[in-house]
Amino acid sequence: MLTIGDKSFNSRLFLGTGKYPNFDMQKQAVDVSETDVLTFSVRRMNIFEPSQPNFLEKLDVEKYSLLPNTAGAKTAEEAVRTAKLANASGLCDMIKVEVIGDDKTLLPDPIETLNATEELVKEGYTVLPYTSDDVVLAQRLEEAGAHAVMPGASPIGSGRGIVNALNLSLIIEQLTVPVIVDAGIGSPKDVVTAMELGGDGVLLNTAVSAASDPVKMAEAMKLATEAGRLGYEAGRIPKKRYATASSPMEGISV
Amino acid sequence: MLTIGDKSFNSRLFLGTGKYPNFDMQKQAVDVSETDVLTFSVRRMNIFEPSQPNFLEKLDVEKYSLLPNTAGAKTAEEAVRTAKLANASGLCDMIKVEVIGDDKTLLPDPIETLNATEELVKEGYTVLPYTSDDVVLAQRLEEAGAHAVMPGASPIGSGRGIVNALNLSLIIEQLTVPVIVDAGIGSPKDVVTAMELGGDGVLLNTAVSAASDPVKMAEAMKLATEAGRLGYEAGRIPKKRYATASSPMEGISV
Amino acid sequence: MLTIGDKSFNSRLFLGTGKYPNFDMQKQAVDVSETDVLTFSVRRMNIFEPSQPNFLEKLDVEKYSLLPNTAGAKTAEEAVRTAKLANASGLCDMIKVEVIGDDKTLLPDPIETLNATEELVKEGYTVLPYTSDDVVLAQRLEEAGAHAVMPGASPIGSGRGIVNALNLSLIIEQLTVPVIVDAGIGSPKDVVTAMELGGDGVLLNTAVSAASDPVKMAEAMKLATEAGRLGYEAGRIPKKRYATASSPMEGISV
Amino acid sequence: MLTIGDKSFNSRLFLGTGKYPNFDMQKQAVDVSETDVLTFSVRRMNIFEPSQPNFLEKLDVEKYSLLPNTAGAKTAEEAVRTAKLANASGLCDMIKVEVIGDDKTLLPDPIETLNATEELVKEGYTVLPYTSDDVVLAQRLEEAGAHAVMPGASPIGSGRGIVNALNLSLIIEQLTVPVIVDAGIGSPKDVVTAMELGGDGVLLNTAVSAASDPVKMAEAMKLATEAGRLGYEAGRIPKKRYATASSPMEGISV
Repeated sequence: MLTIGDKSFNSRLFLGTGKYPNFDMQKQAVDVSETDVLTFSVRRMNIFEPSQPNFLEKLDVEKYSLLPNTAGAKTAEEAVRTAKLANASGLCDMIKVEVIGDDKTLLPDPIETLNATEELVKEGYTVLPYTSDDVVLAQRLEEAGAHAVMPGASPIGSGRGIVNALNLSLIIEQLTVPVIVDAGIGSPKDVVTAMELGGDGVLLNTAVSAASDPVKMAEAMKLATEAGRLGYEAGRIPKKRYATASSPMEGISV
Repeated sequence: MLTIGDKSFNSRLFLGTGKYPNFDMQKQAVDVSETDVLTFSVRRMNIFEPSQPNFLEKLDVEKYSLLPNTAGAKTAEEAVRTAKLANASGLCDMIKVEVIGDDKTLLPDPIETLNATEELVKEGYTVLPYTSDDVVLAQRLEEAGAHAVMPGASPIGSGRGIVNALNLSLIIEQLTVPVIVDAGIGSPKDVVTAMELGGDGVLLNTAVSAASDPVKMAEAMKLATEAGRLGYEAGRIPKKRYATASSPMEGISV
Repeated sequence: MLTIGDKSFNSRLFLGTGKYPNFDMQKQAVDVSETDVLTFSVRRMNIFEPSQPNFLEKLDVEKYSLLPNTAGAKTAEEAVRTAKLANASGLCDMIKVEVIGDDKTLLPDPIETLNATEELVKEGYTVLPYTSDDVVLAQRLEEAGAHAVMPGASPIGSGRGIVNALNLSLIIEQLTVPVIVDAGIGSPKDVVTAMELGGDGVLLNTAVSAASDPVKMAEAMKLATEAGRLGYEAGRIPKKRYATASSPMEGISV
Repeated sequence: MLTIGDKSFNSRLFLGTGKYPNFDMQKQAVDVSETDVLTFSVRRMNIFEPSQPNFLEKLDVEKYSLLPNTAGAKTAEEAVRTAKLANASGLCDMIKVEVIGDDKTLLPDPIETLNATEELVKEGYTVLPYTSDDVVLAQRLEEAGAHAVMPGASPIGSGRGIVNALNLSLIIEQLTVPVIVDAGIGSPKDVVTAMELGGDGVLLNTAVSAASDPVKMAEAMKLATEAGRLGYEAGRIPKKRYATASSPMEGISV
């Protein structure tokens, strides 16, 4: 059971709702994933255009905790404003702070992310900042009151998976609040890796929505999340150079 | 559905039966894993000592395909002799050729493995040789009539997982018979990696039996096998340096 | 030729002066390395205790550009104060901003590092901040006027080398000022890797001073720096799955 | 000083002579590399066509030890025949056994390579077989009398560098004869890695001849070979998770 703020979840897989081939496939993928938390961009909510199609229309939003994100914001101020829009819409159980600092790589801005987190915590939101895997920044975000911290595995949409397992493991080790590994997930292997490191959950979108078969990939991701968590809890064997080695490898060279 | 020789299996996870803390835990782990194929060393069968405890006694061996291995053999001749012992015992649906060429690393002997495979194929066995990840040797084993080929991920008992994903992927690409990734698996991540590469199955033992909680790890491995297979079938997204890159990464440096 | 601020260097290897077995070995290692830039902690300068032994006493400091660091500082304010001490001592051609944010991992504090950089730039120093490999933070440091940026390869003293080649390559790509890869270097391989990524230089200390043979390792590091730079300039061949592949690998799985 | 059979070499870099843009560049690259050993395919020697241009014509072959290879051979018999041609030409100080087992990947055939090695050793050649990184096969090649063993880092021409550092390190550890890492080298980093593992030398061709600037890359490779060897001899620092960790990392997960 994963608890963030005052909410608890059976599933440790947070799923994005964007970029599916169509809304039927979106709904099927969400169903199969057994996620408890849906994330989406506030920008895509068409809050003030009720005549427009609603990209969540096929989903029974009552069944999920909703985690809108502030994508599109480039400053803390914009992120806070976006969060308030989300809140006003009623579709906001928690807010994912996403302040992009670089249009090319879509990597987050550390300073603005921290500032937005501080502000939204003060305003009473349940705040989950998307951040780089900078270990000290993750600690600062926790100190600022973040209810969970969401370090990126690799750049958004890159599909490169866990690039820096060391930093993720240090963040997990040092933080008290949950750590949700976010961004860059490409395949089930990446999910299992994040969970075996002790991550409390993973958030992904493109890896499912842009897979050749999104619904099948959603199921793969569900199973991967469970496999990784169980593997973490079950306590893996140590690594050695070979079985008859008297001690675990010490990594001098290989 | 995985087919080897004239047998078909629902599960792609082959499980070893050795080194569990006790036979109750062994049985529970086997049950939870939902494996269809059990592997064990002929040496431990106590075939000619009926008074001795039978390490398979808690298991309903009728429910499984049995894959005894020739561990202990250092030559093709010894492997063939061991296979015949297994066959005589009645506990031999398929035979895993295991000829160790180096006592320190427990890595297989390529020449003796090939010779034993040729001989046992001639004698009508369903033969699954354990081999290194040498790509051409794997092809020679297929040409010799092996019904599946079992390249090692890393040294037996090392828990180091997939060291050479390239060679495994080339073996998978070049062979017609099933490829079961064997040896060195340490955690669910390794299983998912093998399956995402297109492996037809995995064989593991220590990763479950020596985990802190073998039964929980058995479940993790079952889910990992399914997650990896589904992920492979679902067709993952390409890797890029970052999302806005116009083409997939070409790996010049990173 | 590497240029930082108004200084130019023939060598791209910056060498630390701490933790050598003795001062003779320190001097020999520095000589053999052919470095142009020496770095050391202001804290160890004994500025106000002239009676104390001077850890630089064997070195002809006139021959080098001196890059004292602010190690020990936990805030921007402390870092600025430490920089001023260094400057007052006369042993300060450039200043390395080092603000540790976590006593356990010795990883840098992003916010305080940025603040100290801004302040010292205003005061006219040539400023080289040590930072994580956060890509946007590196851009912010450049915008703040840093004369070079020094992202860590891995935690100080860990000897783990380049953990996140992707982030380093993105920093190198996005910045105009020189990028000196700092911290975590363990062996010549790490140096060559940093230089092949296009790094403008490397800074290391423990990898030489704590090697079994520091003087020999200093020579290895000198050659590695040159080899990596030449390799970068010479333009490496692309990576493929195998030679006859018609196109470079696209990194789907391996 | 590297000794193979009755020859000793100052340089640990063996350089191929094929695929340069032109013979002037070939000569310059060879000169700059300071190699002592040149390798080339017997097939390209035009032994019986003296009117044809000689691809070694610009090189003073007297200055080098010549290591022709049997590329093109698919069986031991063909390799032996090719070796004899080389020997008859007078341009054969040592012979590199190269028996390709797979036209697609150009990976070596373990059985035929072993057979050719046995035969050529009997005939009095100084024999250096090119082989996969199969650890036991390398031992068998040594037992067959090989004067050095040349495991591939990755497929010929792939530029992928050291894929399986574990196997290379085990081969180096287990063999008494020199281990020359061959095939797949892409950049100076790969050379340094091979040498830091304790390799006695490296052989490369395409990484230099197909670089944008072959002469500059030749120099980079020379320096990399020296840097890696010195780094190996100098004794690197252990890897830790972070500096203040009381013990080296044990590689449980990262």
